[in-house]
Amino acid sequence: MCRWIAYRGEATALEHYVTEPANSLITQSVQALESTASINGDGFGLGWYGQHPEPGLYREVRPAWSDENLRYLCRHLKSHLFFAHVRASTGTPITRPNCHPFACGKWLFMHNGVIGSWSRLRRQVEALIPDELYPARIGTTDSEAIFLAILGAGIEQPVTAAETVLARLTDFVNQTTPADRLRFTAALANGRDLYAFRYAVNDRANTLYYRESDNDIVIVSEPLDRDHKNWIAVPEGHVVVACAGERARIVPLFQQHQQAAE
Amino acid sequence: MCRWIAYRGEATALEHYVTEPANSLITQSVQALESTASINGDGFGLGWYGQHPEPGLYREVRPAWSDENLRYLCRHLKSHLFFAHVRASTGTPITRPNCHPFACGKWLFMHNGVIGSWSRLRRQVEALIPDELYPARIGTTDSEAIFLAILGAGIEQPVTAAETVLARLTDFVNQTTPADRLRFTAALANGRDLYAFRYAVNDRANTLYYRESDNDIVIVSEPLDRDHKNWIAVPEGHVVVACAGERARIVPLFQQHQQAAE
Amino acid sequence: MCRWIAYRGEATALEHYVTEPANSLITQSVQALESTASINGDGFGLGWYGQHPEPGLYREVRPAWSDENLRYLCRHLKSHLFFAHVRASTGTPITRPNCHPFACGKWLFMHNGVIGSWSRLRRQVEALIPDELYPARIGTTDSEAIFLAILGAGIEQPVTAAETVLARLTDFVNQTTPADRLRFTAALANGRDLYAFRYAVNDRANTLYYRESDNDIVIVSEPLDRDHKNWIAVPEGHVVVACAGERARIVPLFQQHQQAAE
Amino acid sequence: MCRWIAYRGEATALEHYVTEPANSLITQSVQALESTASINGDGFGLGWYGQHPEPGLYREVRPAWSDENLRYLCRHLKSHLFFAHVRASTGTPITRPNCHPFACGKWLFMHNGVIGSWSRLRRQVEALIPDELYPARIGTTDSEAIFLAILGAGIEQPVTAAETVLARLTDFVNQTTPADRLRFTAALANGRDLYAFRYAVNDRANTLYYRESDNDIVIVSEPLDRDHKNWIAVPEGHVVVACAGERARIVPLFQQHQQAAE
Repeated sequence: MCRWIAYRGEATALEHYVTEPANSLITQSVQALESTASINGDGFGLGWYGQHPEPGLYREVRPAWSDENLRYLCRHLKSHLFFAHVRASTGTPITRPNCHPFACGKWLFMHNGVIGSWSRLRRQVEALIPDELYPARIGTTDSEAIFLAILGAGIEQPVTAAETVLARLTDFVNQTTPADRLRFTAALANGRDLYAFRYAVNDRANTLYYRESDNDIVIVSEPLDRDHKNWIAVPEGHVVVACAGERARIVPLFQQHQQAAE
Repeated sequence: MCRWIAYRGEATALEHYVTEPANSLITQSVQALESTASINGDGFGLGWYGQHPEPGLYREVRPAWSDENLRYLCRHLKSHLFFAHVRASTGTPITRPNCHPFACGKWLFMHNGVIGSWSRLRRQVEALIPDELYPARIGTTDSEAIFLAILGAGIEQPVTAAETVLARLTDFVNQTTPADRLRFTAALANGRDLYAFRYAVNDRANTLYYRESDNDIVIVSEPLDRDHKNWIAVPEGHVVVACAGERARIVPLFQQHQQAAE
Repeated sequence: MCRWIAYRGEATALEHYVTEPANSLITQSVQALESTASINGDGFGLGWYGQHPEPGLYREVRPAWSDENLRYLCRHLKSHLFFAHVRASTGTPITRPNCHPFACGKWLFMHNGVIGSWSRLRRQVEALIPDELYPARIGTTDSEAIFLAILGAGIEQPVTAAETVLARLTDFVNQTTPADRLRFTAALANGRDLYAFRYAVNDRANTLYYRESDNDIVIVSEPLDRDHKNWIAVPEGHVVVACAGERARIVPLFQQHQQAAE
Repeated sequence: MCRWIAYRGEATALEHYVTEPANSLITQSVQALESTASINGDGFGLGWYGQHPEPGLYREVRPAWSDENLRYLCRHLKSHLFFAHVRASTGTPITRPNCHPFACGKWLFMHNGVIGSWSRLRRQVEALIPDELYPARIGTTDSEAIFLAILGAGIEQPVTAAETVLARLTDFVNQTTPADRLRFTAALANGRDLYAFRYAVNDRANTLYYRESDNDIVIVSEPLDRDHKNWIAVPEGHVVVACAGERARIVPLFQQHQQAAE
């Protein structure tokens, strides 16, 4: 279990979302309210887009709450699309390459969830990564493997690519005895468009909320303040599609497949 | 607020006290039960005596709960007298030199507490460190400054030296308006003898317990298990004197001064 | 001995100076050409000004050459005035607060040099820091102490403030027997103006160069490329005064004092 | 390129080999004499056997030369069989799980060398790791993958297991166009016996030396002192077999295969 926020909108200093709110991500790193792990002290990361086509990354193995560098960066970095993540490891080591977000080319990804029995399913999941993307696997998490699998599954259609991989993962966990659980609450972006997924198999999905204004959308694991009426819960099995210049749409996952089948 | 344990007795693997008990120090780093800070994730440290007259140290800025090195060392290091400490910083930076325990010559020291308004009292406290010991000040904590002040106050009589410094600190906090608080729950050792202090001014003292058998004594911030009847609470204003080859004595602080004054 | 660069001019990505040149600061961290320490692997730091009146800082204890975060930040951060520094410790611990640059309010400072016998002179130098700035001493280096002493010596006249402190330091090293050495090659900035000093007592001064164009000035420990004719060596006992909107002036240190005395 | 030492003999403090000699491993981390990489500052590690059947590990991402913990541990840890390693990364990230030595069950392994085009050959090499050992792959180096492959190739006959894997690796590098290089200078131990390999394909093998007395054997990347006549160079394509209670034997690799083929 981890906590994260994703922002798309007018360029803004990261501190307004990461460090300043009453229930900011830093506060959640010490005590998350809606997470099975109340402490998220196993490293953290920022990913952000600026003028360069590829995003920047700042990832560290220390807890977010005591990192002076993070406070300086959140004050000085401005971005129109950024991710921030605090980690509670489900078993893989606390290393920078295992901290979220993950970057590859213009794409950015972060995840809160688990593929139950990672050590049993790992080889199957890693096999979903195409050869040309395997050099980009610099860590050992399930999250990074899923990201690279999605990139390899036709990323020009991001929702379909994610659905393709989630269908495979669903098969994998259902083939174990007893059936494993899969929880996937994740964000994906390319510098323009932002996608956030809430999905689970054999388990309850991790929480996901968003708040939209005329100028921006913020998508979070849990609300950043106590004004809960501002925050809309994303239903299980849905994806938030927040394309540049459009209002966000909440779309059921696997809809197109179903439509195609009808 | 921090959590710590000190052990003196037959040489034993550190893991039996640091990592294995139900409420081990590692467990307390995630969720302490009797502390104002439930998370102690701002670094940690081990100090232990072996055949060399000077103690060994292992200190790290990461949380104790995720440090693989710590688990290996606790399994492989055996010692007849060791300290272990998990830190919740009261403001000074998370650096290795600011992690407890502190070592100087044959002496080892660790602390749980605070000198309220450290930034106001710091120069006065640092002035208690004699010139010849000032090069040993490699960090910036109040705890290290107090340790070096005690070493400079006639350390061949450790209790008297600590009393001398505590009397000065008591003056310092009482001279501020409003009066500052002082909490000092600390352990001191020289490779043979172990001393543990529980003292406070203008505040409640932090908890301190011990458990003694024929072969060893364990002194802790809070019990390592739920069998609370085995653990004896040290009263405020007292010091545990656990000299090699003797049963521990619980002695009131400033007793000799009072006797001398009578 | 350390290596550093300072830049003032049109806002630019840090990478053009820190990571890209043939003899970039990163290259110098592996093998400096004009330094007594060829490896500068004891931590590093960036300090930069943006829209916020106070500068940002990124400091790390790992070597600069292997820090992925540094590469991302140098690509994404743009600044009109920034410092970058790679450290070769002269004895104080490798901690983030001991890495350069140092920030206090709107001021930024970094240093390459040494006050010989720091452990002997430390208390005298720390006594130069006024009480109100002493809480800003979060590390233990000679460099940070000198910075805070300069801030306390009338920083509205930065060159005079530095001269006042350098005169005191000169007295200190000349009072020891045998006389200690002092090497001070440092940069100071306030977000608008940049000052770089080259000074030594009882020793040769560390190298200092600059390169100026219509749009910017770069001041460095050693040239960033082999085109040495572009780089002007700053003479010993001089300060580069690079005020916003003016051509840089190379001014002898202690000139005003001498003039006043004439 | 990395530097390492391995020791088997009477239990001794690690400091006599790791930190004290004129050309100690710490000295080699700053400036190795017989290595293509003169700096070995990309992390380091210790592995040692004590009373527990499984070895202890201490691995860190910082350079060995500035790690205070390492000096304390080398003074206080005694062992009859230990490994120490300073790393110069050939591309994989600087994380603790990527630092040598690697431990699995009672086995310990460290490596100096490279499988050229790791990103091209990685999947083939990882496929050599049997499923039951794949969960032990917690890092991403070629070295760890080779170790786990050897463990899975009949480790009860360690030389044969290593030969089996080296034969496969030799095939892999010879199948690329142009042929890749393979350099493998490695140590393997089980708490009793010590094996050290020097092998290369399409390249010169990295240096390997040993020094044996009645009580111990030390095997090193390069001599620990200038008394070179004490150190015997291991020929390319050979393995040092240093079993407990026996004099070391220098055996050609693939000897048995050749004999079987004759």
